[in-house]
Amino acid sequence: MVSDSEGRLEMRLQPVGVVRSEIETPMMAADEAGLTLTERMENVKAYHRRVQHCVCDLVVDPQYTELLDGIEAFSHILVLYWPHLIGPARRNLRKVHPMGRKDLPRQGIFATCSPARPNPVLVSAVPLVTRAANVLQVKGLEAVDGSPIIDIKPYSRNYLQVEGLKLADWMEAIHRELRSD
Amino acid sequence: MVSDSEGRLEMRLQPVGVVRSEIETPMMAADEAGLTLTERMENVKAYHRRVQHCVCDLVVDPQYTELLDGIEAFSHILVLYWPHLIGPARRNLRKVHPMGRKDLPRQGIFATCSPARPNPVLVSAVPLVTRAANVLQVKGLEAVDGSPIIDIKPYSRNYLQVEGLKLADWMEAIHRELRSD
Repeated sequence: MVSDSEGRLEMRLQPVGVVRSEIETPMMAADEAGLTLTERMENVKAYHRRVQHCVCDLVVDPQYTELLDGIEAFSHILVLYWPHLIGPARRNLRKVHPMGRKDLPRQGIFATCSPARPNPVLVSAVPLVTRAANVLQVKGLEAVDGSPIIDIKPYSRNYLQVEGLKLADWMEAIHRELRSD
Repeated sequence: MVSDSEGRLEMRLQPVGVVRSEIETPMMAADEAGLTLTERMENVKAYHRRVQHCVCDLVVDPQYTELLDGIEAFSHILVLYWPHLIGPARRNLRKVHPMGRKDLPRQGIFATCSPARPNPVLVSAVPLVTRAANVLQVKGLEAVDGSPIIDIKPYSRNYLQVEGLKLADWMEAIHRELRSD
């Protein structure tokens, strides 16, 4: 850690690779003014389905290829990445309607998975399809093309699996809607 | 994102809070020279048990208190933190014996959960015990006292749960040993 010009502690990251995906815009980027709630939900569901089936590449900087050795033994990996299309001003948001849905009560940013947050480090567990040297193919990653990769880890039961999970009602509602056809 | 003095892209994070825990040293910090493998494993098991039962505080910077609103509705949260006792030189490691165990074959850093990695952002899903204003009490977090908190998110099934999980044999072996008494 270092101090910035105003004396605050700062942690500095450099990309270890980049996401190459057919997905080019974040879910919320489309101009949705004028759509009804039902139309917006149909858009979200279509986007979600597209992401679920999307296979994309994690292109790791060749200087780090060796750091991937052994990752093929895992069925799933955890990807940490930076939502580079979220402008710096959006790091100052405090509360949001989850997924921009005005019908759901506003929540504090830390109670949501919004990509707009003070330290926008996004985390997603995805199946590892193949590895070829410095390129990992994964399925169902929501990251848009060009997202800098911060870290790659194996999916560890000890750090990531939980028992007796209970979600907020609004998140359960969103999950139910995404599952329905 | 900004460029550093050598023109590389850099992502900058500022702590949003700090971990307050009775755990003061990382698992690997103890001087273990001269111990047999069995003695070392007993140490690791004792440390793991202690972490599992430990309740610690995530003290969020008061400027961010409002961002926690709504988090009480979740049974589990995801904590991203910085292992501040890992020196900068250890960000250059390429391969390690998992958990320092010479009997297990060396793995690339990205195939392990080692805190020593290019971008040392650690991720752990833990039960949320209580929230009081800007302080969250959580159980079983391995972070040592004083670790800067990078982010707090709700545990989302969509981003974190996986099906058909298969781990590397070495990690299964470690998990088995940690569970045995």
